[in-house]
Amino acid sequence: MRTIEWKNGIVTTIDQTKLPNQTVSLKMKSCSGVAKAIKSMQIRGAPLLGAAAAYGLALTAHYSKARDKEQLIEELVAASRVLKRTRPTAVNLFWAVERVVEKAKETEGEAVAVAEAVVKEAVKIAAEDVEMNRRIGEHGSAVINNGDTVLTHCNAGSLATVDYGTALGVIRAAWKKGIDISVIATETRPLLQGSRLTAYELLRDGIPVTLVTDSMVGYVMSKGLVDKVVVGADRITKDAVVNKIGTYTIAVLAHEHKIPFHVAAPKSTFDLNRSAKDVVVEERSVDEIVKFRGVQVAPEGVSAFNPAFDLTPMKYVTSIICEEGILSSETFQKLSTED
Amino acid sequence: MRTIEWKNGIVTTIDQTKLPNQTVSLKMKSCSGVAKAIKSMQIRGAPLLGAAAAYGLALTAHYSKARDKEQLIEELVAASRVLKRTRPTAVNLFWAVERVVEKAKETEGEAVAVAEAVVKEAVKIAAEDVEMNRRIGEHGSAVINNGDTVLTHCNAGSLATVDYGTALGVIRAAWKKGIDISVIATETRPLLQGSRLTAYELLRDGIPVTLVTDSMVGYVMSKGLVDKVVVGADRITKDAVVNKIGTYTIAVLAHEHKIPFHVAAPKSTFDLNRSAKDVVVEERSVDEIVKFRGVQVAPEGVSAFNPAFDLTPMKYVTSIICEEGILSSETFQKLSTED
Repeated sequence: MRTIEWKNGIVTTIDQTKLPNQTVSLKMKSCSGVAKAIKSMQIRGAPLLGAAAAYGLALTAHYSKARDKEQLIEELVAASRVLKRTRPTAVNLFWAVERVVEKAKETEGEAVAVAEAVVKEAVKIAAEDVEMNRRIGEHGSAVINNGDTVLTHCNAGSLATVDYGTALGVIRAAWKKGIDISVIATETRPLLQGSRLTAYELLRDGIPVTLVTDSMVGYVMSKGLVDKVVVGADRITKDAVVNKIGTYTIAVLAHEHKIPFHVAAPKSTFDLNRSAKDVVVEERSVDEIVKFRGVQVAPEGVSAFNPAFDLTPMKYVTSIICEEGILSSETFQKLSTED
Repeated sequence: MRTIEWKNGIVTTIDQTKLPNQTVSLKMKSCSGVAKAIKSMQIRGAPLLGAAAAYGLALTAHYSKARDKEQLIEELVAASRVLKRTRPTAVNLFWAVERVVEKAKETEGEAVAVAEAVVKEAVKIAAEDVEMNRRIGEHGSAVINNGDTVLTHCNAGSLATVDYGTALGVIRAAWKKGIDISVIATETRPLLQGSRLTAYELLRDGIPVTLVTDSMVGYVMSKGLVDKVVVGADRITKDAVVNKIGTYTIAVLAHEHKIPFHVAAPKSTFDLNRSAKDVVVEERSVDEIVKFRGVQVAPEGVSAFNPAFDLTPMKYVTSIICEEGILSSETFQKLSTED
C-alpha cells in the first residue's frame, strides 16, 4: 500500500492518527502543512518522514514565485528549517532535506528549472525508498525460518515508509516466499502504533498477528513463543540503534532469552559519524500518557516522563538488515570505523 | 486509607474500576456480590482478595438461615466454591477461604455461634493484613536509602490490601521515617493500575511520583534513574514470584542493570508446596487490550493474548520482604525446602 504520493502539486497521505477506526486521506499543498502533519504524528515512521520532508520542499519549490535560483534556495533553506524543527530524532528527515537542498544548489538555470529538479528529486527519494524496502525485505527474509514467530515493536511497515515497510517488509517478503510465519505485535504505548497500524497492515495482508501489551514481552519470550525479533530504526549511530521507546527493553529481554534481535532499516537511517550520546531523544507531551483520547486516566496533576525513543547498544543487536544485505553488528561497527 | 470494612452485615469497599476519575463506594450484602466485584476487578490486589473473600463468607454466615452447624458448613463450602472460581492466580483468596471454613468446622455449637465465629475470623483476617503490612513496611524501609528512586509496578498499595499496602507500604514507611524517596510508577497495561491507583495513592500522600509506560523501564534504568525496584506479589512459590504481567520484564531489566529487585508480600502469599509450573496464569478478555473504555483501538477481529500475571524466577529476586523480615531469595528457597 502506497502511503504518500505527489501529483500535480498535491501531496496525498493517510492521517495515521485516525487509523484503524477511520481511513482519512490528508492532502497537503504547502511545506508548513507537511511540517504540521509530522509534528502531530499524522505522518510518522523514519523513512516516511524522509519522503514527506522531501515532498514538503517540493511543494515549496512548486508554488514558489522566486525570481531566480538564489531566491528559491533561500526559500528552500527557510522551509528546511521549519521541517528540521518538527521532530529531532529520526535522521532520515535531515538526510532527505539536505539531499534536496543540495540538488537545488547544484542545478544550473532559472528558478523554474531548479524547482523542477527539486520536485524530481523528492519523487526519486520516495521511489528509492520503495526499492530499498523491497531489497531489505528480500535480504531479510533469509533470517526467517519456516514456522517462526517474529515479534515486532511499533510500526515499521508500509505506514512507516513510502510503501512495503522495513521490519514488516522482511515479514512480507518471507510470507510471499511461502514461509509459514506468524507475528506477535506489541501494542506500543503511548500512541499504540502496534495496535493501530501494525495489526491493521498485517490483518489486511492476511499474515497471522497477535497483539500483546509491551509489558508481556518477557512472558511470551520465557514461554518460548518468540523465535526472532525484527524492528525498524529511526537512526543508527556507530554504537546504538535509536528506535521507538520500548525497543531497548525488548532487546535486553531477547538477549537474556538468546533470541536473535534484527534491525531492518535503509542506509539513509545510518548516522555513522555520531554516537548514542549525540542523539537528542524527543520528549513528547505527558498528555499522551495521562490521557486517552482526551479522557484523563491518571490523577490530575501527576508527573509523567514521555521520551519517544530509546537507544539499544550494539551488543544487543544480532544484525542490521539494509538494502545492501545483512550486516552483523560487528561488521556494521567496522563499517562505521572505515567511514 | 482503609479499603474494605465490615459493619453490621454490610461490606463496604471502593469500586477500583472507577478511580481516579470517581470515588464510588461499593456496598455488598452477599457472597455472590463479593464474587462479582472480584471478577470485574472492582476489588483487586492479592491481600485485598484474601480479606474480601473472607468477608464474602462472613456475609454468607451472617445472613444464613441454616438450622444447624452442618447446614451452615454446607452453605459456606458452596460459597467458597463460587469465590474460588473468580480468579485463579492470587493464593491469598484460597488461603483466606480455607482459613474461614476451617474456623467454622472447628467451632462447637449452634449455627448462630458458628456464624458469629466466621464473621469474627473474617474481621481478624482483615485486621491482621493491616498489621502485616505495617510490619512489612517497617522491615522493608531498611532497604531504602536517602535519595533513592524506587520503581514499582501495578498497585501494591492501600488499594491492593486492607490498608497501607505492601510495596507501597515499604515506600510509605521510608517516607514517614523522613527518608527522601521518589517513585517511578509504571502505568501497567492493560488496566492501568499504576496510573489509576498507584499514582492516585502516592499523590494523595504527597510522595513524589512520575508515571512511565511499561515500555520505558529499560530506558529509565539505562539512564541511571532507578535505584531499587519494589513490587508486590500475587503468589510466591518455592521457585518464582507470580505477580502482575510485566513484573518479569522489569526483573530481567533490573538484573541486567544490577538494580536490586525486592518483592514485598505477607506470608499468606507464600505457596511453598508449589512451583512455577503448578500455577494457573489467568487469561483475561482480549477486549482489555483491543478496546479502551469501550472504544476500539485495534482493528476489528485482531487476535490478542492477555495473561494477567507472569512468573519471575528466584534468580532475578534480591529479597522477599514479609512481616517477619527481609529474606534473601537464597534464604527464602531454604525456607521452602524445610517446609
